[in-house]
Amino acid sequence: MPTVIEGDPATRIEAVSTLTEATPKELGFLANPRYEKQLGTTRAAAVIVDNDVEPPRPMTLLRTAQPYCAIREAVVMIHGFRRHPEWGIHPNATVSPGVKIGKNANIGPYVTVAEDVVIGDDVVLYPGCSIGQASRLGDKVTLHPNVVIYAESTLGSHVEIHAGTVIGEDGLGYAPDGEKWAKFPHVGRVIIEDHVEIGANCTIDRAMLGNTVIGRGGKLSNLIAIGHGVNIGANAMFVAQVGLAGSVTIGRNVKMGGQAGVIGHVTIGDNVNIGAKAGVAHDVDPKEYVLGQPAIKASDAWRVISMTQKLPHKLPELNQRVKALEAELAEIRDSIASSAVD
Amino acid sequence: MPTVIEGDPATRIEAVSTLTEATPKELGFLANPRYEKQLGTTRAAAVIVDNDVEPPRPMTLLRTAQPYCAIREAVVMIHGFRRHPEWGIHPNATVSPGVKIGKNANIGPYVTVAEDVVIGDDVVLYPGCSIGQASRLGDKVTLHPNVVIYAESTLGSHVEIHAGTVIGEDGLGYAPDGEKWAKFPHVGRVIIEDHVEIGANCTIDRAMLGNTVIGRGGKLSNLIAIGHGVNIGANAMFVAQVGLAGSVTIGRNVKMGGQAGVIGHVTIGDNVNIGAKAGVAHDVDPKEYVLGQPAIKASDAWRVISMTQKLPHKLPELNQRVKALEAELAEIRDSIASSAVD
Amino acid sequence: MPTVIEGDPATRIEAVSTLTEATPKELGFLANPRYEKQLGTTRAAAVIVDNDVEPPRPMTLLRTAQPYCAIREAVVMIHGFRRHPEWGIHPNATVSPGVKIGKNANIGPYVTVAEDVVIGDDVVLYPGCSIGQASRLGDKVTLHPNVVIYAESTLGSHVEIHAGTVIGEDGLGYAPDGEKWAKFPHVGRVIIEDHVEIGANCTIDRAMLGNTVIGRGGKLSNLIAIGHGVNIGANAMFVAQVGLAGSVTIGRNVKMGGQAGVIGHVTIGDNVNIGAKAGVAHDVDPKEYVLGQPAIKASDAWRVISMTQKLPHKLPELNQRVKALEAELAEIRDSIASSAVD
Repeated sequence: MPTVIEGDPATRIEAVSTLTEATPKELGFLANPRYEKQLGTTRAAAVIVDNDVEPPRPMTLLRTAQPYCAIREAVVMIHGFRRHPEWGIHPNATVSPGVKIGKNANIGPYVTVAEDVVIGDDVVLYPGCSIGQASRLGDKVTLHPNVVIYAESTLGSHVEIHAGTVIGEDGLGYAPDGEKWAKFPHVGRVIIEDHVEIGANCTIDRAMLGNTVIGRGGKLSNLIAIGHGVNIGANAMFVAQVGLAGSVTIGRNVKMGGQAGVIGHVTIGDNVNIGAKAGVAHDVDPKEYVLGQPAIKASDAWRVISMTQKLPHKLPELNQRVKALEAELAEIRDSIASSAVD
Repeated sequence: MPTVIEGDPATRIEAVSTLTEATPKELGFLANPRYEKQLGTTRAAAVIVDNDVEPPRPMTLLRTAQPYCAIREAVVMIHGFRRHPEWGIHPNATVSPGVKIGKNANIGPYVTVAEDVVIGDDVVLYPGCSIGQASRLGDKVTLHPNVVIYAESTLGSHVEIHAGTVIGEDGLGYAPDGEKWAKFPHVGRVIIEDHVEIGANCTIDRAMLGNTVIGRGGKLSNLIAIGHGVNIGANAMFVAQVGLAGSVTIGRNVKMGGQAGVIGHVTIGDNVNIGAKAGVAHDVDPKEYVLGQPAIKASDAWRVISMTQKLPHKLPELNQRVKALEAELAEIRDSIASSAVD
Repeated sequence: MPTVIEGDPATRIEAVSTLTEATPKELGFLANPRYEKQLGTTRAAAVIVDNDVEPPRPMTLLRTAQPYCAIREAVVMIHGFRRHPEWGIHPNATVSPGVKIGKNANIGPYVTVAEDVVIGDDVVLYPGCSIGQASRLGDKVTLHPNVVIYAESTLGSHVEIHAGTVIGEDGLGYAPDGEKWAKFPHVGRVIIEDHVEIGANCTIDRAMLGNTVIGRGGKLSNLIAIGHGVNIGANAMFVAQVGLAGSVTIGRNVKMGGQAGVIGHVTIGDNVNIGAKAGVAHDVDPKEYVLGQPAIKASDAWRVISMTQKLPHKLPELNQRVKALEAELAEIRDSIASSAVD
C-alpha cells in the first residue's frame, strides 16, 4: 500500500495511539471523518490520514488511500501481537494417556485433554480449557482461558477462540411427547475451519446429524449463538450477540450487525449484509443489504423508517391528515347533497 | 407410533444422516417439506417420511405420521446418547469435607465442591465445574465443563446443564442512593426442577428473596438470561438469547423464539407462544401467540407487518396516496368555490 | 430515611420475604403497586409500605417514603451480604512467582495468577478464575468462579464480577485484505473503576489502542457485550443482554433496558434512559429517554406505537380509510364530471 510522508521524515515513533491520547512520541491516525476535529488538538508526533484530509495546521502526515489498513500495519510493526505465557505442558494440566500433541505445545494449568484427542504444532491452551474426547486441533490453535471443546469437534489451523466460548454443546432438539419433550441425541459434530477467530462466551451447537461448520477465515465477536447444523461460508464477519437458529445456511463474505438474528432453515446468499438488530425470516439473495424485523431490503426499510422513526413522524401525522380529509369530504358530501336538494 | 415400511424390509442401516450426507448404508429422513427435492438425489438406503410424501422414484421408505419423532427414535436406537468419560472422583477435584455424594459419582478434574453440598446418585460433573456451598444436586444430574452453581442452589434429578452456564448469581437489584446505587443482598435462591436441560453460557439469577424457579421439564437453549425471582412453569421451550427480566411469571408449556424478551413483573399464561425477537411488555393470556415490539397478538402483528415489511410497502405508498387525495380535494374545493362565485 | 411503625412495635422479625412467601415470623414489603392485593392474604408479621397504601385489614406496617430502600436496609440488617468460603491461598491455585498480593488474600482452587500481577487487600478469587499477566486488582475485589481477566487489565477497588465474565478479550477489529480479514492487534486495555459490579457471562473487549473504561459505580447485569474502546461514565445501570459496539461513549447515570444496543462511535449524554430492546443509531442528548429501532424520543416512539402496536391497530385501519376516501372521491369526481356535461 503506497504511503506518502508529508512533513518531517525523521520523526521518531515509539507507539501508536488515538488522536486524543497520543503523546508527542506517538503516531496517531484518522480513519473515521467523525474525528477530524481532533487533528487540531492532538499532540501526536505524526498522523496517518487519507489522501483528502486537509489538516488545520502544519503537521507530519502519513498519507494513504487506506488509513485503517496502514494503522494496522503500523501497530503490527511497532507493537506486534500478543505474547503468550510459556507453560510447556504445565504439571497442573491433565492430559489423558494416548493423546497426540505436536511440537512446542503450550498448555496451561487446569487444562483437561480427554482421550483420543489429536493436537497439532504450536498450540496454546490457556488455563481452564477443556478439550473433549476425540477432538482434533490443527496447528497454531490458540484457546484462551476456560474455552470448552465438546467431544469429536474439529478445529483447523490458525484458529483462535476467546475465553469462555463453548464449541459443540447439544442444540435445542426435542421431539414432542405429549406435553413433555423427548431429547434428540446430537450425534453430529462441529467443524471450525482454518483461520477462524471466535470471540468470548459464544456458543456453537454441534449438529444433530452431520456437521455445524464455521467456514475458513470467519471472524465472530462475543456472545454469539450458532444453532445446530448451521453452515457458514468463508470470511463471515459477525458483530456481538448475533444469533443463528438451526440449519441456517450462510454464503461467503456475509456480514451481520450486532444483535441480528436469523430463524431456522433460512439460506443467506454470498456477500449479503445484514443490519444490526435485523430479524431475518426469509432467504436473502446474494449481495443484498437487509434491515428491520422482519428484515427487508434496506432501501425499502429506510422508506418505512422515514415514515415512522424520522422527524417529522409522518405516521402519526398521516392519521391526522386522513382525519382532515374525511371531515372535508363529509362537508363536500353534505354540500353536494344540499345543492342537489336545491 | 405406527411405522410402515415400503420397499425392502431387509435394508441394513448402520447410521442415521441427513438426506444430502447419507451414504447407501445410512437412513435419511424428511421432516421439513422444504427439503423434499432432496429425495430425488439422496443416496440414503431408506428414508423416514410422513404419510403424504410421494417420492420421485422408487425407494425404501419408513412411513409415519410423525417423522421427526420417528427419526429421533432411530437415532436413539442406532447411536444412543453421549457416553461420558469415567473419572470416578478424580484426584484433581477438590471436594470439601462433609460433602455427601451418592453412588457412581463421576467427577472430573478441577471440579470444586464447597461445604455442605449434597449430591445424588449417578451424577456427572465435567472438568472445571464449581458447586457452591450448601447446594443440592439430585440424581442423574450432568453438568458439562465450567458450569458454576452458586451457593444454596437446588437442582432436581435428571437435570443437564451445558458448559459455562451460571446458576444463582445476584440479579440487578440496587436501591438508589443519590446518584449511586446501593446493592440489595440477594438472599433468595434458585430451584431447577427435574428433567430441565439448560444450554451453554446461560445465566439464571438467584432471587433477592424467595426463589427463582425453572419448572419441571423445561428446555432452554444457549445464552439465555433469566432474571431474579422469575418463575417458569413446566415444559418451557426457549430458543437462544431469550431474556426474562426480574419477577416475570411464565405459565406451563410456553415457547419463546430466539432473542425474545419480557420486561419485569409480567405474567405469561399457559401454552403461550412468543415469536422470535418479540418484546413482551404486558401480561399475555393463555394460548395466545404474540409477536413484535411491543408484542401484540400475532394476527394483529401480521396486519401491521403487511403494511410495513411486505411488498408492496403499503406504508410509504399510503403517504403518496394521501398526498394525491389532498391535492385532488384541494382542486375540488377550488372548483366548488369558483362555481359558487359563478 | 424516616420510617413510622403502625401497629405492634414489639413484633419480632426473623427474616425478610415476599408477601406471598412470608411466614408469621417474617417481614414482607410492598414496593410495586401491582402486588397491593397481596396485602389481603399475606401471613407476614409486618409489611413495609409507602405512605399512601391503605391496607385492607389491620396489620403491623412500617411506613416510609421509599419502601424499596427500606426493604434493602432491612435485608442488610437481618440477613447481611454473602459470606465467602475461606481458602487463604489454596494449595491448588497456581500463582506465578513475583506476583504481589495484599493482606487477607482468599484465593480458591484452580485459580491461575500470571506473572507481574498486583493484587490488593481483602481480595476474593473464586475457583477457576484466570488473571492475566500484569493485571492490577484493587482492594476488596471479588471475582466469582471462572472469571477471566486478560493481561494488563486494571480493576479498581470494591469491584465485584460474577461467574464466567471475561474482561479484556480482543474486539472485532480487522482490516480488509481482499476477501480475507487481517487482524488488528489489540494493544489497548480495560479499566474497571471502583465500585463497579458486573454480572455473569459478560464480555468486555480491550481497546485496540487506549482504553475501554467502565466508570465508577456502574452496575451491569448478565450477558452484556461491551465493544473495544467504549467509555462508560459513572453509575451506569444496564439490564441483561445489552450490547455496545466499538468506540461508543456513554455519559454519567445512563440506564439501558434489556437487549438494547448502540452502534459504533455514538455518544450518549448524561442521565439518558434507553428503553428495552432499543437500537440506538445516533447520538442522544443528555436527559433524553429513547425507544424503538432505530431509537427515537420516547414521546415520539409512543405516538408511532399507538398507530401500530395498540388496539385498535390504526395502521391497517388507516389503509381501509384511505381506500374509502379514494372511492368516495372517485364518485364525487364522476358526479362533478357528469354535472359538467349536463
